Amino acid sequence: MTQKDSVDQFKILREIMDKFLKERDWKAFHTPKNIAMSIAIESSELMELFQWNNPTNDEVIKDKELLEKVRDELADVMIYSISMASSLNIDLYASIKQKMLKNSVRFPEKNK
Amino acid sequence: MTQKDSVDQFKILREIMDKFLKERDWKAFHTPKNIAMSIAIESSELMELFQWNNPTNDEVIKDKELLEKVRDELADVMIYSISMASSLNIDLYASIKQKMLKNSVRFPEKNK
Amino acid sequence: MTQKDSVDQFKILREIMDKFLKERDWKAFHTPKNIAMSIAIESSELMELFQWNNPTNDEVIKDKELLEKVRDELADVMIYSISMASSLNIDLYASIKQKMLKNSVRFPEKNK
Amino acid sequence: MTQKDSVDQFKILREIMDKFLKERDWKAFHTPKNIAMSIAIESSELMELFQWNNPTNDEVIKDKELLEKVRDELADVMIYSISMASSLNIDLYASIKQKMLKNSVRFPEKNK
Repeated sequence: MTQKDSVDQFKILREIMDKFLKERDWKAFHTPKNIAMSIAIESSELMELFQWNNPTNDEVIKDKELLEKVRDELADVMIYSISMASSLNIDLYASIKQKMLKNSVRFPEKNK
Repeated sequence: MTQKDSVDQFKILREIMDKFLKERDWKAFHTPKNIAMSIAIESSELMELFQWNNPTNDEVIKDKELLEKVRDELADVMIYSISMASSLNIDLYASIKQKMLKNSVRFPEKNK
Repeated sequence: MTQKDSVDQFKILREIMDKFLKERDWKAFHTPKNIAMSIAIESSELMELFQWNNPTNDEVIKDKELLEKVRDELADVMIYSISMASSLNIDLYASIKQKMLKNSVRFPEKNK
Repeated sequence: MTQKDSVDQFKILREIMDKFLKERDWKAFHTPKNIAMSIAIESSELMELFQWNNPTNDEVIKDKELLEKVRDELADVMIYSISMASSLNIDLYASIKQKMLKNSVRFPEKNK
């Protein structure tokens, strides 16, 4: 078994997403403009969980109810992002790695 | 080789992200509130690419300059989302699959 | 009666807002960061009303239920904006007029 | 001189806005969907000013450069909000006062 045969998580998620949209005839609604709006809307719902407070990471981890909400909203942001990438034939995994590399060059390490 | 040994893309991205933040002493800035804001800000920059127009997916694919910008902004949304998931010990891949399943139940197929 | 004595709508709104916050001891929560987040959250709720559709202005005007929601969300955006301006001693009315003037210079008229 | 003759700031701003759009033939772009997106985009730019820090109101007031940016972004949020209200024949001043009244009922004072 080579690495190519192994689990490609982003491919699996893209396939689940495409199947979901096709079964519901929702492909037509997933225009770039609508999905960009949807990502923004979901990210705002995530942000709303921290509107009036400023918990540490540990405090969120201990607050099971809040953590579950964060998990849910974060998943919604990701789902629309994966849908957009799929519709535009963008390789999301490669894009993220490439952008991280770009960021590493743009923001050099402190002690180097 | 079992599936467990195979490529775990989300784990790889999380490790790149954690290393990047650690090398720059930026962990302290990545509070849930700040990262939720950052995801919203990046998603707004993605949305800005479609503020006054409404191209089809094919039109975006053909416009290489626009596609590159979409790719970049989408990666930024994902990078902050992965950072938040990492800080909160959230298994993003499992969360997305679980939310998709929830959506499948919530929005039944048309012909079933 | 001179113009100076006449109705200053922004001043009236600012006074209503300040009184409201003071009576509830909420001033402390209205930090610039929190209010900027709140404006973004309310504007996302406004945007959600047009997430999957693209009505004309006339269609919104005729849809009394939708129009009421738009009215409400728009008011929320304004209320937080007025609160931020008040906390920072910003003269909102003057700022808007000044920015419109700046825009007029930045984007010259077509036939001039 | 009666109150009706006095300065109606929101009317003045609406008129400046309408004239600006008409002179540039931009009315057609100001659909409810596009303007809702624009309000969200401008509010995100305002939020970006507080992405990694959390200054007090006084600190912002003393930082003239930051204050000027806040003033500018806040004006942009207001300008698009006024444009939307104008296109939909919404009386913004009345809407805000009405929503504040609604809020007063929804969130009663502490000591009452």
